[in-house]
Amino acid sequence: MQNFVCHIPTRIFFGKNQIEVLGQEVKKYGSRVLLVYGGGSIKRHGIYDAVTRVLKENGVEFWELAGVEPNPRISTVRRGIQIAREHNIDFILPVGGGSTIDCAKVIAAGFFYNGDPWDLVVRKAKIEKVLPIGAVLTLAATGSEMNSVAVITNKETNEKLGIGHPDMVPKFSILDPTYTFTVPAYQTAAGVADIMSHIFEAYFNHEKGAFVQARLAEALLKTCIKYGPIALERPDDYEARANLMWASSLALNGLLQFGTGPNKWSVHPMQHELGAYYDITHGVGLAILTPHWMRHILDDDNLYKFVQYGVNVWGIDPGKAPHEIAGEAIDRTAEFFKALGIPATLREIGIGEDKLEEMARAAVEHGGGSVGTFKPLSYEDVLSIYKAAL
Amino acid sequence: MQNFVCHIPTRIFFGKNQIEVLGQEVKKYGSRVLLVYGGGSIKRHGIYDAVTRVLKENGVEFWELAGVEPNPRISTVRRGIQIAREHNIDFILPVGGGSTIDCAKVIAAGFFYNGDPWDLVVRKAKIEKVLPIGAVLTLAATGSEMNSVAVITNKETNEKLGIGHPDMVPKFSILDPTYTFTVPAYQTAAGVADIMSHIFEAYFNHEKGAFVQARLAEALLKTCIKYGPIALERPDDYEARANLMWASSLALNGLLQFGTGPNKWSVHPMQHELGAYYDITHGVGLAILTPHWMRHILDDDNLYKFVQYGVNVWGIDPGKAPHEIAGEAIDRTAEFFKALGIPATLREIGIGEDKLEEMARAAVEHGGGSVGTFKPLSYEDVLSIYKAAL
Repeated sequence: MQNFVCHIPTRIFFGKNQIEVLGQEVKKYGSRVLLVYGGGSIKRHGIYDAVTRVLKENGVEFWELAGVEPNPRISTVRRGIQIAREHNIDFILPVGGGSTIDCAKVIAAGFFYNGDPWDLVVRKAKIEKVLPIGAVLTLAATGSEMNSVAVITNKETNEKLGIGHPDMVPKFSILDPTYTFTVPAYQTAAGVADIMSHIFEAYFNHEKGAFVQARLAEALLKTCIKYGPIALERPDDYEARANLMWASSLALNGLLQFGTGPNKWSVHPMQHELGAYYDITHGVGLAILTPHWMRHILDDDNLYKFVQYGVNVWGIDPGKAPHEIAGEAIDRTAEFFKALGIPATLREIGIGEDKLEEMARAAVEHGGGSVGTFKPLSYEDVLSIYKAAL
Repeated sequence: MQNFVCHIPTRIFFGKNQIEVLGQEVKKYGSRVLLVYGGGSIKRHGIYDAVTRVLKENGVEFWELAGVEPNPRISTVRRGIQIAREHNIDFILPVGGGSTIDCAKVIAAGFFYNGDPWDLVVRKAKIEKVLPIGAVLTLAATGSEMNSVAVITNKETNEKLGIGHPDMVPKFSILDPTYTFTVPAYQTAAGVADIMSHIFEAYFNHEKGAFVQARLAEALLKTCIKYGPIALERPDDYEARANLMWASSLALNGLLQFGTGPNKWSVHPMQHELGAYYDITHGVGLAILTPHWMRHILDDDNLYKFVQYGVNVWGIDPGKAPHEIAGEAIDRTAEFFKALGIPATLREIGIGEDKLEEMARAAVEHGGGSVGTFKPLSYEDVLSIYKAAL
């Protein structure tokens, strides 16, 4: 096991009606709130009403930034910073999924930076100070509610990049599984794929001494596999929504990553290029790429990891030949995503052959020469995975 | 899944040589430290030297409370408070296992209370303020390094009771697995039994919707089962010590408990009476009682949970009859503890028949009329389990 520092300061209020704590929690940090949200689904489903009611009951003033995109853009971050400065905002409250929370994080960091916030994303400038953030989660997917990272898209440069800072971690997050009852099937499925991809990015590492982390990762994968289909079948199944929601936070709050060593992600960087060039659903891109990535990298050295995955997660008979187990595990991964109703090819989501080379080049460039560390991917590897996924 | 609030603020520095951060971490909170430790094994193994060297290098003044007992006594807490007051201590630094950390927690709380600190333990007075604490862990067992609870013994009244307060959680804990290389076999085995017992106390609940928590619990049990024997065979096996150490913290930092509902423990309260009347090793008492507790409570209503345990943790063939799986799971639990070299009967650790009734009465009284909630135990139940364990 590698050395690590574990610090998970976010206070999670999990369960029904937890929104009632919002006022008291916000008031610990501020009194002039920027409410950040997306396309307005929170208005249709009563969440906006609940949030604003509790804020008003607690005498908390708020202003609004609406219209955060599914792949949140730096232009929206700029708009948020402007509103925050105009109204002397002292607390940022995203209400939504990971995109909304990510957008809020960069607004919170950009608030104190005098230049363009994109400078922070591309590391041209350092984050020095961050406004406090609290989140109300409405989608089980990104884990942004319990970590310090954000992903932002720049449509002018076709870049989708991650940025992180310890002070960007939400002070608190409210996770009410009933808020996800109305998430459409497609988004629910994409969320499950996103959670599973976060787990895979951690699980496929070469630190054989990180036994406990590997078993925890399998526990979360089993949770996704059990409850993903149930949430699609019965959108208001509380246990399914609750288990997926908590799994989404645990998958990316560090628990699976601590001690596994420096392990750069593989599938997310490839998907980030798809997301930068095409406005696709993040989890769908991940689900399409993942089985192809697995097939592409499987070799004699990492076979043991796929065998572990097949036996411990999919319950494949350990008596079978290792290559057979690995192949079956990958096939079952692809079948699972398909059964969730996720498209299996890039063409189905409107991505053709024309930009594959450009995106593969960008992925490798953003990765500093290669993508991922479990099995580092060259330009040719990435292109080959993209093509296989067409 | 039940509603819950998750807050795990302790910063964990895990791995080799993490002691080097001690100075910088202590200085965030104070400059006049009370160093708390036990019987002196930290002096024999160089840990005392490392701790005091780093403190001196950082210009941190310190005073010492040595001799904390394996079942830390309120009399030692009193002694610690006195030293802390004499020297205007502003930070408490336990270096040791759970007993030392527990003792430090109650010193930290008692420091600000004008009466006798036992009042705080028996809830005669409320904890209002607590000195900051940081821990250097030298034994994988109690999980005290990452939670807000302490267990203290009063030899005058034959009571061993738990006490908790959010401010008693360590600000940081340093977990260097190499510090546990010199833990003797018997203490190592007892530590593994303690970790497993914490997991059992959480795992055996009736909240069927807490799926993710149950799978996480199984992940930690598998870690103990894999690495317990390895740590005994090769005391300086880093991976074994590291996995056990991290499992000890995760078993009791809330991860397994969140969302499982109000679930009062069963085996610990029975063991606490043994510990209050006899100076026995905590984990050994737990290991002796656990299989008898399991056999005593197994019934048609909770059979499903034992089947889950047998199949998911011990890999017992799910095709067998449920009662057979449950029985085999309990037998394997007992055999596992025996294979670790832990005595299997109370007589072997010097406990005879004479005080069983008194202890059973005390257990039920301290539990408010019954012990545990998975299957509430009456006086007769507790006595019967004690007798079976003789």
